[in-house]
Amino acid sequence: MKLLPLSCVVLAFTVVHAFRYEDLVEHVDSHQEQYVQVLREWVAVESDSSDVSKRAELHRMMNMTADKLRAMGGDVMLVDVGEQELPDGQMLALPKVVTAQFISNPQKPTVCVYGHVDVQPGKLEDGWATEPYNLTEINGNLYGRGVSDNKAPVLAWIHAVEAYQALNMELPVNVKFIIEGMEETGSNGLDAMIVAQKDTFLGDVDYIIISDCGWLSLRPALTYGTRGNCYFSAEIQGPKQDLHSGVYGGTVIEPMTDLIGILDTLISPTGKILIPGIREAVAPLSDEEWKTYQDIEFDVENFKNKLGVSELMYNNKVDLLAHMWRYPTVSIHGIEGAFSAPGTKTVIPAKVNAKFSIRQVPNLDPAVVEKQVSEYLQAAFARRKSPNKLKVTMLIGAKPWLADTQHGLYEAGKKAVKRVFNVEPDMIREGGTIPVARTFQDVTGKGIIMIPIGGFDDGIHSQNEKISRYNYLEGTKLFIAYLHEVAQIQKSGV
Amino acid sequence: MKLLPLSCVVLAFTVVHAFRYEDLVEHVDSHQEQYVQVLREWVAVESDSSDVSKRAELHRMMNMTADKLRAMGGDVMLVDVGEQELPDGQMLALPKVVTAQFISNPQKPTVCVYGHVDVQPGKLEDGWATEPYNLTEINGNLYGRGVSDNKAPVLAWIHAVEAYQALNMELPVNVKFIIEGMEETGSNGLDAMIVAQKDTFLGDVDYIIISDCGWLSLRPALTYGTRGNCYFSAEIQGPKQDLHSGVYGGTVIEPMTDLIGILDTLISPTGKILIPGIREAVAPLSDEEWKTYQDIEFDVENFKNKLGVSELMYNNKVDLLAHMWRYPTVSIHGIEGAFSAPGTKTVIPAKVNAKFSIRQVPNLDPAVVEKQVSEYLQAAFARRKSPNKLKVTMLIGAKPWLADTQHGLYEAGKKAVKRVFNVEPDMIREGGTIPVARTFQDVTGKGIIMIPIGGFDDGIHSQNEKISRYNYLEGTKLFIAYLHEVAQIQKSGV
Repeated sequence: MKLLPLSCVVLAFTVVHAFRYEDLVEHVDSHQEQYVQVLREWVAVESDSSDVSKRAELHRMMNMTADKLRAMGGDVMLVDVGEQELPDGQMLALPKVVTAQFISNPQKPTVCVYGHVDVQPGKLEDGWATEPYNLTEINGNLYGRGVSDNKAPVLAWIHAVEAYQALNMELPVNVKFIIEGMEETGSNGLDAMIVAQKDTFLGDVDYIIISDCGWLSLRPALTYGTRGNCYFSAEIQGPKQDLHSGVYGGTVIEPMTDLIGILDTLISPTGKILIPGIREAVAPLSDEEWKTYQDIEFDVENFKNKLGVSELMYNNKVDLLAHMWRYPTVSIHGIEGAFSAPGTKTVIPAKVNAKFSIRQVPNLDPAVVEKQVSEYLQAAFARRKSPNKLKVTMLIGAKPWLADTQHGLYEAGKKAVKRVFNVEPDMIREGGTIPVARTFQDVTGKGIIMIPIGGFDDGIHSQNEKISRYNYLEGTKLFIAYLHEVAQIQKSGV
Repeated sequence: MKLLPLSCVVLAFTVVHAFRYEDLVEHVDSHQEQYVQVLREWVAVESDSSDVSKRAELHRMMNMTADKLRAMGGDVMLVDVGEQELPDGQMLALPKVVTAQFISNPQKPTVCVYGHVDVQPGKLEDGWATEPYNLTEINGNLYGRGVSDNKAPVLAWIHAVEAYQALNMELPVNVKFIIEGMEETGSNGLDAMIVAQKDTFLGDVDYIIISDCGWLSLRPALTYGTRGNCYFSAEIQGPKQDLHSGVYGGTVIEPMTDLIGILDTLISPTGKILIPGIREAVAPLSDEEWKTYQDIEFDVENFKNKLGVSELMYNNKVDLLAHMWRYPTVSIHGIEGAFSAPGTKTVIPAKVNAKFSIRQVPNLDPAVVEKQVSEYLQAAFARRKSPNKLKVTMLIGAKPWLADTQHGLYEAGKKAVKRVFNVEPDMIREGGTIPVARTFQDVTGKGIIMIPIGGFDDGIHSQNEKISRYNYLEGTKLFIAYLHEVAQIQKSGV
């Protein structure tokens, strides 16, 4: 049996107050400068997981996270998830995963909050208006790399727990945390850890909550689905080394010509996927789903202007949302091995490698898609009768995630949103992939909800990432309210 | 009137010997270690013109070249050809062009030898077996970056003049040099200098000789043509910034899809150029030309093995040589702005820029080709009805060069080859572009010949560039013999 941490023992001798939402709100509002200050300290750590030269900073970030949770009386572990292999063959220690638990009463239900404290790269010269690692407030917005993705949401969950503690209110449910540091580069080591701790750390977890996403508009939202992703490499090898295009142009079948030719068979000018079997497998759009999309607050004109395009692929709201969330799409990301610098180089690249991906939705199966894409491209290549060699490889095969919106978690979410914002939330999906959601679902079988607090225009992964002070504070209140509502699920037996 | 340099004045008082080829040959053979040593010193200078951080080395290389020619008594100038603008807007001084003249007798004809002493990049980690800037002899081959392209040929011309001087033989013709340091990156400033010195330095030049090329096989060759090059950029702009392919995939018409689509209209799988008007404009292959190609020593199997491909675009000698030298070809070099690194990035690139080029042959006109390509691609793009923007730009428009092989220069070349190697030379063309040849032709109207001494397998622009000691020494003898033969042209009045 585990010993309760000291703070819990102390609490047992103090007067425990009943839940009073207004007091918690007042606490949040009066502590907002402290919240901004700790966010500033977290943003100042350049925890860029993609840049191995920043690995020391990333380790420091994990330790800061652990220290913070430990100072609150959490039972904290830094879980070693091994090493990663660098392209040059060297091994590098992965950042440890921070787990923490705040057990108020073993009889109560337990939620596990997942988040991450690593960030995308951010450099002033990329076009930031402010120093990316120096939190800067302008007109109520807090600018800095990683504020919205995902440091402020993680802190908002921490502040929610702190608020209950500060006011001596018992946590409505037990709260666990899993905070990782490799999310931006593929969550290396996390899946294995989830599998390994299925019956231990995760054994008594009832619900999993993820806040690594954003609203669709100014209206708060609950997220019930994400697309998966099948990411492919199509590599064509021709001559044994790069050739001068003047000296050899006209003598060899060039791998680039072959590659362009087969890539051009993937998708029509209007965006129709041409690989047989993929469109056919997609779950049909039900009338009910169509109706849901109709009700969502989403300004197509505004979206178009934000992207800076004169025309979208679909110009009505339902088609657009459906193709963003629940239809597959092909994106060609680029070509490795060809000339990609500014200027003029007269080269015939010997080996070129196109990267493209197909977003996955119910009822696509990545294993089937892999076979369909590979066979289709090999057939298109065979028709060219080229002497070159084509190798098609699926580098990522992440399944989509779709939650049961009838689960009590969503009803609880709607009540919490209603309490904090006095509106109904939009029920939305994410076009992007959050593979850990599907992993939690497959491994634990528990209910999962995504509760975003980031704004629709936070610019995650872009220059000038921000979160508004409003979203940070009201988001903290939302999490406070949500912990209370989740406890009600148990009572009503949903 | 110009004063004769001191060494010429001294020569005037010494006994001048008549031309004796055997003595010159003996001098070359007995000085080969010195020749290799000076080549070693030149190779040790990392005169990479593409790497602006190496600019000081490039200036040093130009000064070494000038010092060498000055020490031989040449009338040497370092011609300032201005500055280049770097991508960041900074201005950087171009390497000065070295001109030198060795006037034996103003009544004699004058040749002008063009060469360059800048080199391509070369790094051990690119796969060199030896240090690229440390001349290393293995089995009679001298390995080092820039040995064959073009430092040894420039030195062979210098040694040829030195040999005449050392033996007190009057130079059969006056010899001028133009040695530049920007050839590998487009000869910035050279065209303007040639135009400016048309009536001064170039005013009394009768023939221009270029040795910046190689043989086709083990048989010595004379080169009478090069292809030109129209180098294009096709840029497609979509959204105002890069987008996450998960979040936005399915909502926008992606610039990469458009770009792949229009690039795929340029050339058929078997290499047929699909742009109307280009194939039609090419000068027809005459029976005589066909016969010339038939007679050339060229092993198709060997060529195929060297490139490491199982099949070439054409498998008979005449078609292959014709498509290497006198037919246009399209090469797609790569795409700027897309994801080109290893790994997996889920990006929708907002602006992508394909680089491709079409080699130019008689009777194509770059100005016409520019219009044909631009209109063709815009039409292909218009059919896609994409909201994105396409901009087609011709970045380079270099014309082909074709010499009159009936000019005495070629007869002289054949005689010199016969004297040194006791064979008939192959009459060949270059698939690549040496724009300065066309500039000399257009500006001066003088006869031009290319006399290569590099081996067919020297690997210029590749790893492990080399020139054989044999080609370096026999090449020096070839230049010695050629100076003698050129003097005969004048006599016979050809």
